[in-house]
Amino acid sequence: MGKVRVIEIHEDVMSDNNKEALEVRDTLDKKGTFLLNVMSSPGSGKTTALSAVINLIKDKLKVALMDVDIESSLDADKVSDLTGVPSIQIHNGGLCHIDASMTKRAIAEFDAKDVDLLILENIGNLVCPAEFDTGAHKNIMIFSVPEGDDKPLKYPLMFSVCDVVLISKMDTVDFFDFDMEKAKSNIRGINKDAIILPISAKTGEGMDEFAAWILDSVNEHKRK
Amino acid sequence: MGKVRVIEIHEDVMSDNNKEALEVRDTLDKKGTFLLNVMSSPGSGKTTALSAVINLIKDKLKVALMDVDIESSLDADKVSDLTGVPSIQIHNGGLCHIDASMTKRAIAEFDAKDVDLLILENIGNLVCPAEFDTGAHKNIMIFSVPEGDDKPLKYPLMFSVCDVVLISKMDTVDFFDFDMEKAKSNIRGINKDAIILPISAKTGEGMDEFAAWILDSVNEHKRK
Repeated sequence: MGKVRVIEIHEDVMSDNNKEALEVRDTLDKKGTFLLNVMSSPGSGKTTALSAVINLIKDKLKVALMDVDIESSLDADKVSDLTGVPSIQIHNGGLCHIDASMTKRAIAEFDAKDVDLLILENIGNLVCPAEFDTGAHKNIMIFSVPEGDDKPLKYPLMFSVCDVVLISKMDTVDFFDFDMEKAKSNIRGINKDAIILPISAKTGEGMDEFAAWILDSVNEHKRK
Repeated sequence: MGKVRVIEIHEDVMSDNNKEALEVRDTLDKKGTFLLNVMSSPGSGKTTALSAVINLIKDKLKVALMDVDIESSLDADKVSDLTGVPSIQIHNGGLCHIDASMTKRAIAEFDAKDVDLLILENIGNLVCPAEFDTGAHKNIMIFSVPEGDDKPLKYPLMFSVCDVVLISKMDTVDFFDFDMEKAKSNIRGINKDAIILPISAKTGEGMDEFAAWILDSVNEHKRK
C-alpha cells in the first residue's frame, strides 16, 4: 500500500476542452496507445472489476492505469497490488471530474512506456465526468445492481456518453429489487447503441466478454 | 406517478452562497421550519429510507419534501406515493449540487404551509453537494453497505460536513465485504462528532432511532 506515485493536477480554467481532447487522442494515436475512460458512482466496484479484467488481458497487452481521486490513493494502490501493472494516482484538487487538459498533464508525467491500453479510472460521480471529453478513445461506465434499475433515468447524460454499460455486482441481484429488463430498457431509451454487459468480479460472470471487448477495441485502434 | 409539481431552478452564479444560506435559515427560523439536507451517492437508498422515516413521524410533525434531480421526477413522485406528504421536484439544470440561492427560490415557490420539517433530498453525489451550505439546519448523509467501508477516506469533505451518517441497506451486510468497525473508524477519523446509525428500511433496523433523532432535532429547533 502507498507505493504508487501520486500526481497533483488541478484544473486549468482557461483551457478549451474539446481542443485539448483532440490533442490527447492525437498524441496517443501516434504512440499506439488506446485510452479507456471508466466512470461510475462511488462504490460501484470499479477498482475490483478493473483489477479482475486487467488480470485477464495483461499477458496479451501492455496495460497501465491512472486513477483519479480527491485525496486518497487507495484505488491505484489496490490495482497495483492485485495486478502488478504500472499505476499512478491523480489527485484532482477536490473537483468532481477530470478534463482533457488534466489528462494530458497526467499522461505527460506518467512515464509508463509502450503502453497498449491506458485505463483512466475516473472519480466516482454520475454527473460531472460525463460533461468532459477526457481525450479517451472509448467511454464505459459501471452501474451496480444495488444502485437500482432507475439510475439511467436519473443520470441520462452519463448513460448517453458511454459505449459500454457494465452492470456490476450481478452476484447480488437476488438480494435487491433490480429488474434487469427494466434496467436494459431504461439504458436503451437513452442510448440505443450501448453494449450492455452484466458482470460480477466475484463469480467471473461476464468478465471474459468484458476482456474480449477491450482486446477487440485495442486491436481495432492499432489497425487504424 | 408524475403528479408532483416540478420547479426548474438554475444556478445564480453571482450569489454569495454563505450570505444566502444565512438568509434561508433566518427565514425558516421565523416560520418555525426545520430544514434537513440529505446527501448521498446515487442509489444509496435515500428515497426509500426517507419515505420510511416520514411515515414514522408524519403524525407528530407537518413534513414536506423537496427533491433535487437533473431531469426526472421519480423520487418526489415516490415519496408522495409512499407517504402522502407534500413533495416537489426541483430540476437543477444539470448541476451536481444545489446551493442556498436555489434552495431559497425553491422554498419561495413551494406553497406548503406551516411545515415543521422540510426535507431537502439532494442530488446523488458525494463531491459537489458537500461544498455548498444550502441553508439547512442539519446535514445528514446516507452511506450504503454495498458502496464499501472505504468511502469516508475517498470523499472526506462529504463525511466531514454531516451531523449524522446513516449506514443504509444493513439487511445486505452479509453479502458484501463490509467491515462495520472499519467503516466507523474511517468516519470517526474525519468527523469525530458525527452520529453513526446503521439502518435498513427493509427490516426496520435503526429506523426508530433515526425518527427519534429527527423529532429531537425539530423540537430543539422550535424551543430556540
